[in-house]
Parts: sequence; structure tokens; C-alpha cells
Amino acid sequence: MINYEALFKISYGLYIVCSGNRDRGNGCISNTVFQVTSDPPRFATCCNKNNLTAEFIQNSGAFSVSILEQNASSEIIGKFGYKSGKEFDKMIGLQIHYGETGVPIVLDESISFLECKVVQTVDVGTHFMFIGELIQAEIIDGTKDSLTYQYYRHVKKGAAPKNAPTYIDKSKLKAESIDYLLKKYQCPACGYIYDEAVEAIKFDDLPDDWICPACGSEKSDFIEI
Amino acid sequence: MINYEALFKISYGLYIVCSGNRDRGNGCISNTVFQVTSDPPRFATCCNKNNLTAEFIQNSGAFSVSILEQNASSEIIGKFGYKSGKEFDKMIGLQIHYGETGVPIVLDESISFLECKVVQTVDVGTHFMFIGELIQAEIIDGTKDSLTYQYYRHVKKGAAPKNAPTYIDKSKLKAESIDYLLKKYQCPACGYIYDEAVEAIKFDDLPDDWICPACGSEKSDFIEI
Repeated sequence: MINYEALFKISYGLYIVCSGNRDRGNGCISNTVFQVTSDPPRFATCCNKNNLTAEFIQNSGAFSVSILEQNASSEIIGKFGYKSGKEFDKMIGLQIHYGETGVPIVLDESISFLECKVVQTVDVGTHFMFIGELIQAEIIDGTKDSLTYQYYRHVKKGAAPKNAPTYIDKSKLKAESIDYLLKKYQCPACGYIYDEAVEAIKFDDLPDDWICPACGSEKSDFIEI
Repeated sequence: MINYEALFKISYGLYIVCSGNRDRGNGCISNTVFQVTSDPPRFATCCNKNNLTAEFIQNSGAFSVSILEQNASSEIIGKFGYKSGKEFDKMIGLQIHYGETGVPIVLDESISFLECKVVQTVDVGTHFMFIGELIQAEIIDGTKDSLTYQYYRHVKKGAAPKNAPTYIDKSKLKAESIDYLLKKYQCPACGYIYDEAVEAIKFDDLPDDWICPACGSEKSDFIEI
């Protein structure tokens, strides 16, 4: 028996993982960044094989990780988490530091960053796990807290996109109480669905300044489906 | 340049990872448990090659993960995190549920658990990374929060043991301000060192009911070194 609700008890952060070079970089939101050994310090990250970032990491043999601050905006999460870099250059308009390997490192809305050189690539099915040796780490702003996946889910009401390792099809979640009056609302900009059956708060009860956690569209733009 | 302080911004939980069978089980504390793919749901955990738990996972081809509650006691963390199962059976005296693969699953002080069947073992240097397919997941107590590594470090004043992937030699940490009056105190029971140079609070300012985060010994037992 798999109760998918149990998986939400695992703690994760939220990161922008980037790769590429000065001419063309790309990045995506990841919640799977973790240290795998301390001596030497090595870090792993999982990236969907269909993501442009996976291709860039394979080509450059390096990646950067920017650790998002707790109040990271929906705009930056929407840009890196819900849009593909195949259509536009995500680096435009951001403060980018180029690492020792040449990979772009996003400084915006981040509290610290890592840069890693890939030493191992593991095929784990739908995703590649890239294991990299740490070559650079620095704090950007030590006064702020990290954004955790739990905070993103509970406070920001965000959900994992389909390409994430932690994506869970909502039909797999147990509805604690069945309420036939519960509704769904869709963001017209990005398609994000606010489903009252899996959220603790009714859509109407959300504050007026609530915005789409995926792309930042306003609450009033949402359409009942 | 590697600023090791930057690594503390990465978010982790704290888990008891177990393996073995009904006759003999063992487990250790891990902060590296994470989902690597969603379809099928697969999870990875890193275990030091010298740990008895690594040997048990290799022999049984399965492992369980108990997600510790925020107020997990120093006793359970000390037992699984700082003591070796080579010397005694850690399962004695605990509430153990045996999984579909026969591995023990610790229910004490945990809010949910997973059981995984190993599908891949990756040698990442000092550690093995075991990747397992999820075969069982259940909530034990849905009302409590998970213990995060950050909470363990900041509130419980705990540190990673030497075998952990996230262990950092304290000499590598930048002292934000050098204070020659800072002291060190050692736990006589387990050897845990409270180092004022890396903690935000002076030892004398800790509450009287503060206990060793590693083994639960009382504050008054600590010896200045």
C-alpha cells in the first residue's frame, strides 16, 4: 500500500540549477539537491531527461545551484519551474555570475550558491542524476532563510510541475473527506490548476492579493473549471 | 573558493534508515533521503560504506525510511546517529513494523515511513547511494511536523557525525568574529563537543535542561576542555 501523502513529509529545499556558458545558459527549479559525500564534498541533483538543462549539463560537464530565499517571487519560480528555455533565454534580465567552469549562476532572490564539476552521471529512469564535485560555494545573503518545499506548498500554495521527481498525480492522493461542492480553478496564463479537493483553503477564501504560484497571474484572472 | 557556511543553506530532513530482517536489524540516522523519479516513485539514500546499515542493505536488497518528528528525542538520535549496531541490537525496546520485504521499520517518534526495494547501487566514493523503488508508504501521525536538519542544528544544537555525507570539519568553517574567550565543552558520555566558536549561544547561556544532542546526557555533566 502506498499512501502518497506520506511522501510530503520528506524535507526538501528549492533551488535553481543552471548550466551552459556565457553565450547560452539555462536553468530549472529543482528540489533535489543534496550532498552525497563530505570528503571530497560532492553534490547530486536530478534533472528530467527532457529538460534543456539536462542537455546543457551533459554538454558542459558542470552545473550551478542557487539556493532560493524563503520569499522568492512567483515570477522567478514560474520562469525557471514552469517554462522551457527552448523558447527563450531565461538568463536575460537577471544578475548572473559566471563560475570557474563558465556556467551561469543566478544571484537574484538567492541566499547562497554552489558550483560543481560533474564526476558521475547516473541514469535513474525518467531522470539523470548528476553527481558533481564542489569547486565553489559562497553566501550571497546570510541574513535570510532558505525556501523549503514545505513552505512553498503550504504558504505559497505551489505544486511540483510534471517533470519534477516529486510530482504526484492528484488522483493518487487520498481525499480526507469527499466534498462534492469543492471546485477547481485554472490560471489562464499558465494552466495551473487550484484544486480545492487537495488544498486546505477554498479558492474564495484566499486573500485578494493571492497570485498564481506558477506564473504570478492575479487571483481575479482565474477561471472556474 | 569554498565557503563551507554556504552548504548549511541546503534543506534536509532527518530520517532513520533501516535494513536487515526479523532476526537482526540495524539502522542509522540519515539526512540524505530524496525522491529521484516520480514514475515509478524511486528514492535514494546515501550510507557510509563503513556503516553496518550499508552491509545490511546490500544483503537484503531493501531499506526502510522512518521520517522523524520535529521533537524526536536526543536518545533516539543518539542511538541511531552516534552508536554502531556492531556492538548491540538497536531494535530492542522499539516498536518495529516489518515491511513487505522483511526489513524493520521504526515507528517510534516518526510521522511516516517508506519501504523501498533496491534497484541500483551507486558507488559515490566514501558512501554508497542506494536507489530503491517505493513499495510501501504510510503515515504514522499526520498531525506532527517533520524534523529538519536546520531545526536539529539551530534548535537542538546537533551536529552531523563523521560518517555523514554532510559532515564538515569545524576547522573549515569561517569564524565570523574571533573571540579568544570562546570555550569548548565535551560530553563525557559520548564525546560530543559543544564549541562556542561555531554555536550562536555560549554554553553557560544554554538552559539548565539542555541535554547533549548526541546522547541525551545532562548539561551539568559536560566538562570544559
